[in-house]
Amino acid sequence: MIIDVHGHYTTAPKALDDWRNRQIAGIKDPSLMPKAAELKISDDELRESIANNQLKIMKERGSDLTIFSPRASFMAHHIGDFQVSSTWAAICNELCARVAKLFPDNFIGAAMLPQSPGVETKTCLAEMEKCAKNYGFVGINLNPDPSGGHWTSPPLTDRYWYPIYEKMVELSIPAMIHVSTSCNACFHTTGAHYLNADTTAFMQCLTGDLFKDFPTLKFLIPHGGGATPYHWGRFRGLAQEMKKPLLKDHLLNNIFFDTCVYHQPGIDLLTKVIPVDNVLFASEMIGAVRGIDPETGFHYDDTKRYIEAAKTLSADDRKKIYEGNARRVFPRLDAALKAKGK
Amino acid sequence: MIIDVHGHYTTAPKALDDWRNRQIAGIKDPSLMPKAAELKISDDELRESIANNQLKIMKERGSDLTIFSPRASFMAHHIGDFQVSSTWAAICNELCARVAKLFPDNFIGAAMLPQSPGVETKTCLAEMEKCAKNYGFVGINLNPDPSGGHWTSPPLTDRYWYPIYEKMVELSIPAMIHVSTSCNACFHTTGAHYLNADTTAFMQCLTGDLFKDFPTLKFLIPHGGGATPYHWGRFRGLAQEMKKPLLKDHLLNNIFFDTCVYHQPGIDLLTKVIPVDNVLFASEMIGAVRGIDPETGFHYDDTKRYIEAAKTLSADDRKKIYEGNARRVFPRLDAALKAKGK
Repeated sequence: MIIDVHGHYTTAPKALDDWRNRQIAGIKDPSLMPKAAELKISDDELRESIANNQLKIMKERGSDLTIFSPRASFMAHHIGDFQVSSTWAAICNELCARVAKLFPDNFIGAAMLPQSPGVETKTCLAEMEKCAKNYGFVGINLNPDPSGGHWTSPPLTDRYWYPIYEKMVELSIPAMIHVSTSCNACFHTTGAHYLNADTTAFMQCLTGDLFKDFPTLKFLIPHGGGATPYHWGRFRGLAQEMKKPLLKDHLLNNIFFDTCVYHQPGIDLLTKVIPVDNVLFASEMIGAVRGIDPETGFHYDDTKRYIEAAKTLSADDRKKIYEGNARRVFPRLDAALKAKGK
Repeated sequence: MIIDVHGHYTTAPKALDDWRNRQIAGIKDPSLMPKAAELKISDDELRESIANNQLKIMKERGSDLTIFSPRASFMAHHIGDFQVSSTWAAICNELCARVAKLFPDNFIGAAMLPQSPGVETKTCLAEMEKCAKNYGFVGINLNPDPSGGHWTSPPLTDRYWYPIYEKMVELSIPAMIHVSTSCNACFHTTGAHYLNADTTAFMQCLTGDLFKDFPTLKFLIPHGGGATPYHWGRFRGLAQEMKKPLLKDHLLNNIFFDTCVYHQPGIDLLTKVIPVDNVLFASEMIGAVRGIDPETGFHYDDTKRYIEAAKTLSADDRKKIYEGNARRVFPRLDAALKAKGK
């Protein structure tokens, strides 16, 4: 079985966009604020938006199951207040839950949180609980910078975040550390902000001792870990100067990387440098990079081809990357699969 | 000849620190503000600080000449106003000029600029001119985020920066794009902010068309380009979606990467993915990562070993990385060497 741990609902029906635009207009003029119930998307519309897009590509490329969460760049936690984020997160999570219900063999949900800059993180717990218990979601996306590129929240090692971690541990769900759109003109969203956030999150964890307080907490750092594996020597050296344990002991029981790296040399480096137990298959399609690479004739984000071609990997390694590691990092996913006899 | 294009004066005598601390105290209480002339460091002190540190290591590792600029993390352009930055930059640049004069075969200067957040960039031109013409400096370090991790300046493609670019073109000097210390708790200075800035700068250039306005402008992106080479497929794909030319045509006549990547797999990827003409030897020693890698028994920042061991490189490639590319990117360096018959 091939599990893609990083998929977003980037192809939701236009009605979702329209509702969100009305919500944003309603921040300034409350008379324009739509009710959640005014968003109407039929099961057929949902089916069509998936069957002709993600599911079609999954079948073409040969992956089976995608951990599916709301579109990352549209989370936009910086827009409005907690109430705005909360309503928006609930709507987006419910749509993913409906997709997972319509295609139970191919999609399983992960939640966006109703984060809002400066707001206490305990405000996210009810949505986490609902998504895990009512929707059968297996993970969350945690935004380390709900300000959208201004980085006004404390580092992930700060106690500010602990209520979320406590709930994650209680529910046995990991977090993918994933920022949203950048509203800082310096940072292109998918070309800079995403990768910077990955590197930043890793370094925050390296600097702190978060996993002493939460030994079972699990973070998935997407986009191949940003700059982390490429600079693994730098990070090993920095940890050494800080008198931290070796990275494998300090961080690699808790931090995992996905394979959203869109060329062969990048995947070769990732799978060579990072222990195979810490690498999880992912493509983030249909996402930031949708084109066909003229150097290969295949889609940039068809990451399975790179895993297949990575010379240092054995068949067992690939099985871990495709399935075994995901089952270990996402215990609720494993349980859901086992309940189906898979 | 082996030229290290990325060295900072990280070992300056303690008197420099003391003076800076007095200057910072003087921001709040002008009665404490020291005069520049109150900093007294003798030639012997300078000699000692270099001969026992950078020069000793250069001899041990087999490099000949270092492009030497003030300590990057101490530029701290966010501290004080333009006057504070201006005095500090002048002092730091003068010390590097004195080092270059004391060791003319081993060091040649590159300038820090008296940047200050929100201040017009034309205020940097006099220092640039002085350093190039009076001190024989061959480059500058340009800080894309003088706020120190808050990213309040416009992207490098904005006209805000054009006065500096016009002067760079006039003087035939390239800029290393190098941030300074982070005063944002989210970003560890050398483990996150530096690498993020490298990635950010590259993506800003990718998004814009700066090099149409300045076809001869040259940027050196340090630390192996941050996340850029590791995600080269992502960047190629993003450029493609934006209908930009191929990266080699869009950016690689103007953007170069150094080799400050502190492990073999990183250098292997860099030299495989980035055309050899765009890679310049550098170590940034004595810098962020000073320890010995227990996996190799050698210093992490002994990057020459990785270049020597990179299997895809020919002897000619190495000559370009060690010398030829630096002479091309830094024309004033080439001229200075030729004037000495080198």
